[in-house]
Amino acid sequence: MKTASICTIGDEILIGQIVDTNSSHIARELNALGIQVKYMTSIGDDRARIIQELGQCLDNTDIVIVTGGLGPTKDDITKDALRELSGSSGYKESAEQMAHIKRILGARGIPMIDTNRAQALVPDACSVIPNKLGTAPCMAFYQLGKARTSALYSLPGVPFEAIGLLPDVMADIRRHFSLEEITHHTIVTFGIPESTLAKQIESWEDALPENIHLAYLPNPTVGVRLRLTQFGGKADFKPYIAQLQQILGDAIYGEGEDTLQSVIGAKLRAAGKTLALAESCTGGHLSELITSVAGCSDYYKGSVTSYSNEVKMNILGVKPATLSQFGAVSEPCVREMAAGVLRALDTDYAVATSGIAGPGGGSPEKPVGTAWLAAARKLSDGSVQVATQCVHFASSRAVNIERFASYALDLLRRNL
Amino acid sequence: MKTASICTIGDEILIGQIVDTNSSHIARELNALGIQVKYMTSIGDDRARIIQELGQCLDNTDIVIVTGGLGPTKDDITKDALRELSGSSGYKESAEQMAHIKRILGARGIPMIDTNRAQALVPDACSVIPNKLGTAPCMAFYQLGKARTSALYSLPGVPFEAIGLLPDVMADIRRHFSLEEITHHTIVTFGIPESTLAKQIESWEDALPENIHLAYLPNPTVGVRLRLTQFGGKADFKPYIAQLQQILGDAIYGEGEDTLQSVIGAKLRAAGKTLALAESCTGGHLSELITSVAGCSDYYKGSVTSYSNEVKMNILGVKPATLSQFGAVSEPCVREMAAGVLRALDTDYAVATSGIAGPGGGSPEKPVGTAWLAAARKLSDGSVQVATQCVHFASSRAVNIERFASYALDLLRRNL
Repeated sequence: MKTASICTIGDEILIGQIVDTNSSHIARELNALGIQVKYMTSIGDDRARIIQELGQCLDNTDIVIVTGGLGPTKDDITKDALRELSGSSGYKESAEQMAHIKRILGARGIPMIDTNRAQALVPDACSVIPNKLGTAPCMAFYQLGKARTSALYSLPGVPFEAIGLLPDVMADIRRHFSLEEITHHTIVTFGIPESTLAKQIESWEDALPENIHLAYLPNPTVGVRLRLTQFGGKADFKPYIAQLQQILGDAIYGEGEDTLQSVIGAKLRAAGKTLALAESCTGGHLSELITSVAGCSDYYKGSVTSYSNEVKMNILGVKPATLSQFGAVSEPCVREMAAGVLRALDTDYAVATSGIAGPGGGSPEKPVGTAWLAAARKLSDGSVQVATQCVHFASSRAVNIERFASYALDLLRRNL
Repeated sequence: MKTASICTIGDEILIGQIVDTNSSHIARELNALGIQVKYMTSIGDDRARIIQELGQCLDNTDIVIVTGGLGPTKDDITKDALRELSGSSGYKESAEQMAHIKRILGARGIPMIDTNRAQALVPDACSVIPNKLGTAPCMAFYQLGKARTSALYSLPGVPFEAIGLLPDVMADIRRHFSLEEITHHTIVTFGIPESTLAKQIESWEDALPENIHLAYLPNPTVGVRLRLTQFGGKADFKPYIAQLQQILGDAIYGEGEDTLQSVIGAKLRAAGKTLALAESCTGGHLSELITSVAGCSDYYKGSVTSYSNEVKMNILGVKPATLSQFGAVSEPCVREMAAGVLRALDTDYAVATSGIAGPGGGSPEKPVGTAWLAAARKLSDGSVQVATQCVHFASSRAVNIERFASYALDLLRRNL
């Protein structure tokens, strides 16, 4: 099995100014190729440390992926360290990257200055993978490390540029290393905690053939992804997935990179149906999840965040008696919110949330972390049918909101 | 200057399953104490590697902070590695942590099992900093490393537990190490890019006394934080800040941990005024930012996400002629959206957004990344005054949405 190191460069990481999201993204892509990530480390803008650390990584792993330490305002410490590490005597200009730099600056109406021009310069020994989204290219170096068999890829630190380059980098890795054939199939589940899931599918997992490996990939918003991996040969996962569907039923909602919001969106689009949201405790997060799917305007009409009871009554038509008798965090209220927004925005489906995200508020009967969720749908006779669910979590405000929203999406998904 | 290492433990990081947000949080706290973070690294659940890496960190830095590798479902590889590293012969029970475990499980109605009981067991040489938010305590070890002067703190990996423990950990670090006296004052700015800001305040910065250090801490949602740090002695930042205010004017909106949404909230609360939002391109993100401030229900009534033109017209009262003549991404539309939601939700202030987040859509006149923003306020005669702004960004969908939302908040802030 090939091994890899992921190194992020930049003082801004060591002083905690930015959260490194690139490394986990890169790790997932390497993992999917069957490459084991052995080291993940952050290095400051310090030439000697960069050379030392990258040298160690090249000696000990087959592939080294570096992000950051480039860009027009950096002092190019990283680029010169790479020049030295790769044994390059000087720099050459990448015509292809220069074309991208000109195009990008031109579109923004920014004149080219020397610091931009310098970004197309790369060490002699480097192969360039052009960056269409930014001015700094990806630099690839081969035959490094003590066995002269390791490769290093240096990517810009800006996340959307780094992630945009990854397909090309992974293709290059596949070309340069004879990787064992590997096939994946991922099933996405929601609503069953990882430990319970593991017990439910224990005997199924034990009966898997030796060359099929199962991985649990839990995510608070997505649910638990179950990834089947086969090393070598042609994989036929179908019989195992059919068995899994028998055990887990409708806890399975998708495959691959599906999310609750993408699956809901695809179903609504296919059926020509529309969606509205009424949010109280989730405060806009549910709408943000729905609109994170590009093209959602095909089925998503909009939402009302009804943080005050006034908005619940005036815009959504929640009855004053409902609020006074049961309170805003109640089944009757969330039912009326869902039906109300469906009618106000004239949609086929609607979701509503009302709960206590904390840290303050709550009572012995309705502690912080409690929420009522509703999913409404318009029937053919014009009447509205509403399904409800009460959930309890005991986490921070942000995590409670995240969970309320994903359970609300799941309730809708089960009622589409 | 004391130095530190931050190590995260767990295979889930190396396979890219989770993004490590703890390390940047810890780095910021250490940085604020004047401690330099030299190493940041992730280690898999591998006993030998844990001992080797932590040993190296202890030999080379004064403070080592470890997160993860604990918890009831882990095989306690980390805890036993810490036992060996600290020269402990066995384990002892922490009565204080056991009390927290009993309380937490009791509140959730979960019976205590052996794996929970084991979480109160810590290596002999350890000092416990109890964890009120979870079952695994923080373990502190002193007199480690080759000089026998380094300390190691092991925290659970769950972010809200780790972050909840940090104040106690930082207090412990201050007690155990004679840290140089350090004082900070942070000014928060919005709307001026870091590089422009640096030029504007160049001569002010050059005139700062030797013992006052300036750091730029940019953040896409917050803006650029300018942190003044004085080492040793009593600090009086007032004259420097007064000069800074003269140069930057109302680009300065707060201090310390202030955010646009927290400053807006405080001002609205103090004035007894209320806020509504009308979101198109930001799709709920603006509402999410406003509701990320606990207690926002004091001033925030709610929002309408008007993703379809129908909702813009029917709920917000945007005129059909406005949409047909100027389109949804236009000054007249965003103006009517802001005034419309202010009236519909009966508030004193309102913010509206309408733009093209991408990746699709856009035109030569209105390219992807364009948005119109509006901030409306009700005047004493009942009429509504609206300020507008057009912004252009060229990033990914998620980053464009983030920037639209923060510029919209800034427009409101300037018009409060």
